[in-house]
Amino acid sequence: MYNIGIDLGGTNIAAAIVAEDGTIIRKGSTPTLREREYQPILKDMAMLALKLIEEEGINLEDIHSIGVGSPGTPDPENGIIVYTNNLNFKNTPIRDEIRKYIDKPVYLGNDANVAALGEYECGAGVGYKDLVAITLGTGVGSGVIIDEKIIDGSFNGGAELGHVSIDFNGITCSCGRKGCWEQYSSATALIRDAKEAAAQNTDSLLYKMVDGDLDKMNAKIPFDAAQAGDEVAGAVIDNYVKLLAVGIVNVINIFQPEIIVLGGGVSAQGDNLIKPLKKEIINEIYGGEEAFKTKVQVAKLGNDAGIIGAAMLYRAYEK
Amino acid sequence: MYNIGIDLGGTNIAAAIVAEDGTIIRKGSTPTLREREYQPILKDMAMLALKLIEEEGINLEDIHSIGVGSPGTPDPENGIIVYTNNLNFKNTPIRDEIRKYIDKPVYLGNDANVAALGEYECGAGVGYKDLVAITLGTGVGSGVIIDEKIIDGSFNGGAELGHVSIDFNGITCSCGRKGCWEQYSSATALIRDAKEAAAQNTDSLLYKMVDGDLDKMNAKIPFDAAQAGDEVAGAVIDNYVKLLAVGIVNVINIFQPEIIVLGGGVSAQGDNLIKPLKKEIINEIYGGEEAFKTKVQVAKLGNDAGIIGAAMLYRAYEK
Repeated sequence: MYNIGIDLGGTNIAAAIVAEDGTIIRKGSTPTLREREYQPILKDMAMLALKLIEEEGINLEDIHSIGVGSPGTPDPENGIIVYTNNLNFKNTPIRDEIRKYIDKPVYLGNDANVAALGEYECGAGVGYKDLVAITLGTGVGSGVIIDEKIIDGSFNGGAELGHVSIDFNGITCSCGRKGCWEQYSSATALIRDAKEAAAQNTDSLLYKMVDGDLDKMNAKIPFDAAQAGDEVAGAVIDNYVKLLAVGIVNVINIFQPEIIVLGGGVSAQGDNLIKPLKKEIINEIYGGEEAFKTKVQVAKLGNDAGIIGAAMLYRAYEK
Repeated sequence: MYNIGIDLGGTNIAAAIVAEDGTIIRKGSTPTLREREYQPILKDMAMLALKLIEEEGINLEDIHSIGVGSPGTPDPENGIIVYTNNLNFKNTPIRDEIRKYIDKPVYLGNDANVAALGEYECGAGVGYKDLVAITLGTGVGSGVIIDEKIIDGSFNGGAELGHVSIDFNGITCSCGRKGCWEQYSSATALIRDAKEAAAQNTDSLLYKMVDGDLDKMNAKIPFDAAQAGDEVAGAVIDNYVKLLAVGIVNVINIFQPEIIVLGGGVSAQGDNLIKPLKKEIINEIYGGEEAFKTKVQVAKLGNDAGIIGAAMLYRAYEK
C-alpha cells in the first residue's frame, strides 16, 4: 500500500506517492495561486494526486490514505483549517472537499508538525521514541512527536517553541512578546546580527564578503567568514550558538526527548553548527556531559519532510 | 475496587485507600526515617498499606493496584527509583520490594508528576483532556498530563518547566543555568524580593509587618501588605505576577493545554493571584483575550494530590 502526501505551500502544492518506508515513488507539483478561493485550490490538490496515481500506473485501491500538511491552525479531528494568513482559508473543510474527488481517508496537520512527523517516521528520528524538530528559518518553527503522536495541544496551536521567551526584557517579537527564542535563533536573527556587526566593522571579512552591500547578507556568510578566521563573524556565530543552546536546553528540560533534529537554512551548516552547539549545551545543562542524553543532529529529509510526513499522518491518527 | 496511593516524602510516608472517584476512604502515615536503607523504608510502606486494609475491614481482593509517588528520578517501566537526593535510593527496586509483601501491580512516578495526575483525574483537571500543574513552592515544580499520560520524556527527568530559562543573562539558578523560571516565580523568589524591598524601605508596611525582622518574611505577607495599600509590597507583587505570566505564557505556547493548575504555597492566594495573573497573560499572549483559551486556576486537592495521584497511576500505565 501507498499513501499520498500533499504539502500545501503559499507558492506551490507539492504531492507524492509515498511507500510505507518513506520512499517517494512519484512526485509532482502545481502552483497554489493563493489568491483563489479554497475550492479550486483543493480541487487542484486532488487532481494532482489523481494524476500521480495515473502516471505511476497504479490504482486507487493501492492508496491507503491522503495526508495534507498546511500552514496555519488545523482542526485535524474535523479535517478543517481553522485559519491561516497565507491563504484565503477560514474554517475550510479540507477533508470534505478533497473527498469530493477521491474517496479515501484524508488526514490533516500543520506544516511544521507534519515535517516533524516525516523526520520521526522516515528521517533522522527513525528508531527513537520521541523527537522534537526545530526549524531555523525565517522564524523558529517546531514540531513535537511522542509515541507516534503529534503534540500540539488542545487548541491545535501548541508546540510554538519559537515563541518561548528566553529574555523577558528582550527584543520585541512579531507576536507582541519580548525575547521570543526566534528573535535570537532564526536565520533572520542571524542575518540581522551579522549585518549589524558588518556595518560596525567595515574592515572585517564579514563586510568584504558582501562587497559592502549589507542586503547581500545571508545565513551562510557569517559561518564562512568565521571559518576563515574573521573575528567579527566569529563573535556573531559564538553568540548565535550560545543562544541557540539556551533554547535547546529549554527544550531538553521541557521534553527530554531522545532526539532533537534541526532543520531550516542554518542547519545546512552541519557540524560547523552542531559541534560548537553541543559544547554550549553541555555547559548549560544540569549535570553536564553525563546528563546530556538527548541526541542533537541535523534533519535528514530536507524539503521532502513535509510531503513524507503528510503521507505518514495516518499513523498519528489511526489508533 | 480500590487503589492504594502512597506518597513517599523525606519526612513522612503518607498512604490511603482511594476509591475510583478519588475519594480517600482511609488515610494513615508513618515516619520515613530517611537515613535508613531502602529495605526497611519499603517494608514500612507495605505494612502501612496492609494496616489500612485491615483497619478498613476490606480484603486484598478489593485492591486493584498500589501506586507510589517518590521524589527523584523514577524508571516507571522497571519500577525503580534511579536516583533521589532526599533518600538513600539509587537504582532502588521499589516495585519488587513492595511485592515481597503485597502481590499486586505496583506503579511508580515522580512526586510532581503524580500530584499533577491527581489533579487531572480527581481535582481541578476533571473533564479536561490535558493539564499542566505548576507548583509555586521552594522551587517551581511541574507535571504535564496529556490524554491520561504523564509526559516526562525519554529519560524520566522531563517536564522540568521550572528550569526553562526566561532570562539568559538572569539570576544564576541552583542547576547552574541563568534565569530559570523558578528564580522568579517560586515562593522562595517572592520572599527574596520582598525581603530586599522591605530592607530598602524601612518605612513600608511590608517592613512593619515583619516587625523589622526580615527572617519572618513569608510568601503571604507581601500579598497582605499590597492588599492593605502598601506601594512597596504592591511593586513586589506586580513584578512577581508579571514574571509568573511570562512563564505561564511560555507553558501555553509550548503545550496549549486546556487547563493549567497552580499549586504550592503562593497559590493559596486564590483570586488575589489569579485575577492579576490573567490580566498579565492577556497582555502577553499572541492574539490577546480572544486567543486565551487555556483555563488558569488554583489546584483543588492540596496535600492529598500526591496520594490520590499515586492511587491513579494505574490509569496512566494500564493501556
